[in-house]
Amino acid sequence: MTSSRESTAYLTVTCKDRPGIVAAVSGFLFSKNANIIHSDQHSSDPVGGRFFLRMKFHLNGIEQCLDEFKKEFTAEVASRFDMEWSLNPAWIRKKTAILVSKFDHALMDLLWRVKRDELFTEITMVISNHPDLREAVESFGVPFRYVPVEKGKKEESEQKILDLLEGNADLIILARYMQILTPKLIEAYPNRIINIHHSFLPAFVGADPYRRAAERGVKLIGATAHYVTEELDQGPIIEQDVIRVSHRHDVDELKVLGRDIERQVLSRAVKWHLSERILVDGNKTVVFI
Amino acid sequence: MTSSRESTAYLTVTCKDRPGIVAAVSGFLFSKNANIIHSDQHSSDPVGGRFFLRMKFHLNGIEQCLDEFKKEFTAEVASRFDMEWSLNPAWIRKKTAILVSKFDHALMDLLWRVKRDELFTEITMVISNHPDLREAVESFGVPFRYVPVEKGKKEESEQKILDLLEGNADLIILARYMQILTPKLIEAYPNRIINIHHSFLPAFVGADPYRRAAERGVKLIGATAHYVTEELDQGPIIEQDVIRVSHRHDVDELKVLGRDIERQVLSRAVKWHLSERILVDGNKTVVFI
Amino acid sequence: MTSSRESTAYLTVTCKDRPGIVAAVSGFLFSKNANIIHSDQHSSDPVGGRFFLRMKFHLNGIEQCLDEFKKEFTAEVASRFDMEWSLNPAWIRKKTAILVSKFDHALMDLLWRVKRDELFTEITMVISNHPDLREAVESFGVPFRYVPVEKGKKEESEQKILDLLEGNADLIILARYMQILTPKLIEAYPNRIINIHHSFLPAFVGADPYRRAAERGVKLIGATAHYVTEELDQGPIIEQDVIRVSHRHDVDELKVLGRDIERQVLSRAVKWHLSERILVDGNKTVVFI
Amino acid sequence: MTSSRESTAYLTVTCKDRPGIVAAVSGFLFSKNANIIHSDQHSSDPVGGRFFLRMKFHLNGIEQCLDEFKKEFTAEVASRFDMEWSLNPAWIRKKTAILVSKFDHALMDLLWRVKRDELFTEITMVISNHPDLREAVESFGVPFRYVPVEKGKKEESEQKILDLLEGNADLIILARYMQILTPKLIEAYPNRIINIHHSFLPAFVGADPYRRAAERGVKLIGATAHYVTEELDQGPIIEQDVIRVSHRHDVDELKVLGRDIERQVLSRAVKWHLSERILVDGNKTVVFI
Repeated sequence: MTSSRESTAYLTVTCKDRPGIVAAVSGFLFSKNANIIHSDQHSSDPVGGRFFLRMKFHLNGIEQCLDEFKKEFTAEVASRFDMEWSLNPAWIRKKTAILVSKFDHALMDLLWRVKRDELFTEITMVISNHPDLREAVESFGVPFRYVPVEKGKKEESEQKILDLLEGNADLIILARYMQILTPKLIEAYPNRIINIHHSFLPAFVGADPYRRAAERGVKLIGATAHYVTEELDQGPIIEQDVIRVSHRHDVDELKVLGRDIERQVLSRAVKWHLSERILVDGNKTVVFI
Repeated sequence: MTSSRESTAYLTVTCKDRPGIVAAVSGFLFSKNANIIHSDQHSSDPVGGRFFLRMKFHLNGIEQCLDEFKKEFTAEVASRFDMEWSLNPAWIRKKTAILVSKFDHALMDLLWRVKRDELFTEITMVISNHPDLREAVESFGVPFRYVPVEKGKKEESEQKILDLLEGNADLIILARYMQILTPKLIEAYPNRIINIHHSFLPAFVGADPYRRAAERGVKLIGATAHYVTEELDQGPIIEQDVIRVSHRHDVDELKVLGRDIERQVLSRAVKWHLSERILVDGNKTVVFI
Repeated sequence: MTSSRESTAYLTVTCKDRPGIVAAVSGFLFSKNANIIHSDQHSSDPVGGRFFLRMKFHLNGIEQCLDEFKKEFTAEVASRFDMEWSLNPAWIRKKTAILVSKFDHALMDLLWRVKRDELFTEITMVISNHPDLREAVESFGVPFRYVPVEKGKKEESEQKILDLLEGNADLIILARYMQILTPKLIEAYPNRIINIHHSFLPAFVGADPYRRAAERGVKLIGATAHYVTEELDQGPIIEQDVIRVSHRHDVDELKVLGRDIERQVLSRAVKWHLSERILVDGNKTVVFI
Repeated sequence: MTSSRESTAYLTVTCKDRPGIVAAVSGFLFSKNANIIHSDQHSSDPVGGRFFLRMKFHLNGIEQCLDEFKKEFTAEVASRFDMEWSLNPAWIRKKTAILVSKFDHALMDLLWRVKRDELFTEITMVISNHPDLREAVESFGVPFRYVPVEKGKKEESEQKILDLLEGNADLIILARYMQILTPKLIEAYPNRIINIHHSFLPAFVGADPYRRAAERGVKLIGATAHYVTEELDQGPIIEQDVIRVSHRHDVDELKVLGRDIERQVLSRAVKWHLSERILVDGNKTVVFI
């Protein structure tokens, strides 16, 4: 896992489906003496659909010629197929900022996983609209930024957040951040803000979902991780999972179980994002796992 | 399992919670020389809540004195606590009628489970608004009743169904019956009609749920078994389950997977109903498993 | 799903991993104007490991030139990389024979799934060492062959089975066939015999697994589908799944739950085999789902 | 949840099954004006089996008369049925000691859950045979005791551990403690030492289970929490769970996933132990959830 990061990169490609894409990409990589380690592809519809490709490859010395590699790939392959594509080095830790309010379970789980190197990223900062979690965050050696959101001054607060994030966030994680983001922030980070949603989307959208789930007598509760788009909680779903409950669980116990499932779902979504496994297809995701 | 049906009965009780209920019920059973095999109880709230009790007990010779037993229980226990209660012999097969349209997966699964004695019941008839499944049903030795539903004549059709069911249905299973029942039928069988709902309630209520789930890019699909009430698909949930899906599943494949999960969820709900494990608490269920 | 079978084929490849394989294969398909619909690959180890590839592609008119296609692929690609490979038409139903003893649950599940076209295959026959299931099998229009296994005459019986299978079995399913196969039969169908094993391999190998699982107080029971090899129940695992149980389940109930999980696991393994998703890597499988 | 601890207690009972037990116990509680909140019972076999009962009840002022309550219960009920029983106050935090080596995932998960009050207990100390985790433990305000185990001096080390535990451990958790306990320690804490076992018992007992699971190509990996008995890893199973894996997971990734499932399974087992939900039946458990 860690041993294989050196000279390794992820290439992701999206374009209109037509014959020859894989041949062109793999031919290019072959011509560079790259070795493909994993390759996944998907076609939303072989006739007239979108094509999605992720390749993880090893190429000795790519660290020294990344820009040239990109230039040549553009010229020889990408432009020919009108590709949206990206090339991400596996050996570089992406910068991740976490936004949080008062609940610490998702945050702590992320910090621990980074500390254990289960998540290969650098947490550049934790931003919160409450001061409560400062000590817990700083004990991990991670900077804590307190940005309160005062009534009527939401835009000012968010501008502060934007300034803090500038250059420090390849990925933003909303680890139970209880403020609704403005379009300005969302547009600045398309498909790069991951939210974890309590309860099982699209059911029980809105306030107090566990109470409503308990009242409805559900036998499963769940969590959904999704990219944030302007339409609240309607962005592309990355991962979902559930846990079995019964009439014996009261609302408080549902919340405890919900936290467990939330942090598991969120950490999987983050892990997949960091290793470039998630490609977005309109309002859906293609997840290569 | 089967060996223990003789002289065995299920006692279920619902009443306002207050001290002494279990003592009274178990004291009564003890005075009759009954042996309690399983006992489950639940209180929706120890202070001012509802109390739910299910006891499975063995009593030599109860087959011969069921009515007397009931009379004495009413006098000595039930009336004192203002109980709703029922006593069901484990040695008698309940009568079950299945309503179905064209999809056979849930129906066939039920018929096979009855044949293998996994479900202890007598299927008295299968009623369908389509003639297609006659042969499949009759090959199990089960009567098939074709009751078409003509436009504008729904009430007549349902009256026919009511006549057929009269005296023949302790339980009605809607095994993908694509007609909406009228209140008249529903009221005649309170908490005795089980429906299986494609997709994961309460999400995607309405038409074509698998297509909508595919379009939303869900990562789980599921099924919900519930008792039928007048509010469509909003009755007490009995059981739910899900199965993991991905971008690789098209709508047709989701439907195949959906059928698998539907029949599993339905058969569990039916099994629990037949062994008196389900007590209804308003619009929720208490399921003692 | 079904609509896409025409002019569609599965290409599976196994060889020593080295750069250029994907480029060569996809370049070849591109040169034939084929369109790759799905592609999955896996490397057991990028350095010195084995490489596994499955491509599903569409090529107009391939029905008429399959042999030529194969000849050219051998010459231009396969021989260069010393590949083990196969090309399987998606439009042709493979022939499947099912061996069974007395338990009908796995058998019935398979027959129903074939009837509903959930499994794209032709069941050429069901062979049993007991006559019990004749009627059930023949009601599906499937030939039933009764081949009793008498004490001391096992080889004769198996020769009869081999004769029956000759030319009629691309796949053999042991749907709870309680006889141990001889090496002769196993060697004749390498990686083409799928067995379903009660309980959770490799635990509780041997007789009466559910009783032993109950005595051990396990909280999960499961099933394993695997390819049959000479070492009993030690062949490559294709699929496993479990179901939650508790102290309330007696041995008989464990068996009923076990049957449910067995048939689900078996049907998945069969489905994946039929669509060429399973590649064998020594004593392991690579399953492209 | 927390609100209901006051004046609340758990009564657990094990005895030979015979009629009248529930009547006697609930009659006694009724005579004391106690209100039964939850009641679960199980009979291993109605004829000649063992009977298991757990009752959670509320009794105003029981804090002041616990000893008298116990004395009367012994005289009026327990002695009559030759019961093994215990009465545990819900309002008192049990003392828990955690033993750990170098892996921190299970330990950290427990400490966080205690901090969030998801587990109602007092962690009296963490004992380790390595000094590595001191800082992490002490940051929770929990005492850390370093007790190295030198070659040939295991008994001395364990005596130190016994001395530390004396009076400080109602429960001992082996949160990946990589030393085998001596019978002396095990006998001192019968059914009060919980271990978490990597991999899926009883398969892959012994060293390096994830490597062996990977080599065997399993499709599920799991964890088992059990009480420690003298026979290594063969004690009564409390909880098990699994997670799905594939050929894409290497040994390191299996270990990461294994840690996730280990800490979930362990925390459930601990939670159930702390609320007296686990009754031991020979080498099995009855878990009332």
